[in-house]
Amino acid sequence: MEKLNPATLGSHPMSNPNTLAITPKPPYYAVIFTSLRTEGDRGYGHMAERMVTLASQQPGFLGVESARTEGGLGITVSYWESEEAIAAWKAQAEHKIAQETGRRVWYSGYQLRVARVEREYGKT
Amino acid sequence: MEKLNPATLGSHPMSNPNTLAITPKPPYYAVIFTSLRTEGDRGYGHMAERMVTLASQQPGFLGVESARTEGGLGITVSYWESEEAIAAWKAQAEHKIAQETGRRVWYSGYQLRVARVEREYGKT
Repeated sequence: MEKLNPATLGSHPMSNPNTLAITPKPPYYAVIFTSLRTEGDRGYGHMAERMVTLASQQPGFLGVESARTEGGLGITVSYWESEEAIAAWKAQAEHKIAQETGRRVWYSGYQLRVARVEREYGKT
Repeated sequence: MEKLNPATLGSHPMSNPNTLAITPKPPYYAVIFTSLRTEGDRGYGHMAERMVTLASQQPGFLGVESARTEGGLGITVSYWESEEAIAAWKAQAEHKIAQETGRRVWYSGYQLRVARVEREYGKT
């Protein structure tokens, strides 16, 4: 996802994906989504902002971090309280349309991994 | 980590961090490293390439993916066979110097999460 405009993002304090997410003590879950974009925007930027807003309103959402090297790989990691919260977000109606459009239009390749975060440390 | 020059990277087939990593069937481990850079390069680009080369030569290394939005957040996810492989990489001598320099010089903030990948799917 490209650099987003904080003013258009959701009200969740952890919904700005261009900053470090502050997450609770593990365990919790991470969805690691890596993708390669096709050429041109074709509605991608708008969708990306909208999905961050929607995700941040979902039950069990803990935070999101996103980066894309221009012309290269994009990585978005979202954090969730449980596998159930991840399943509910995957099934969210507008998100399902975005997933389908991603497969057809926006991504030349992608990989999604669901992982259980066991420990963390850092300096924020 | 910025866009890297494939010619200077390690010989491991999964050591180009600007592409999607092809990982084995889960379970395996992910180290999710997110960071905010300080201003200026100060040896960072060279170190980043060197660390990818060294990591790819470590036992248990499975792949790496990296992206940084210009002026924003960087995310590097490396994949490993086991917690033991992660611990050995953390203790690697040249890597320890890079970690220390990162804390002092290159990063204004960072977060490292160790997670167990439980499932994955995608289109590569």
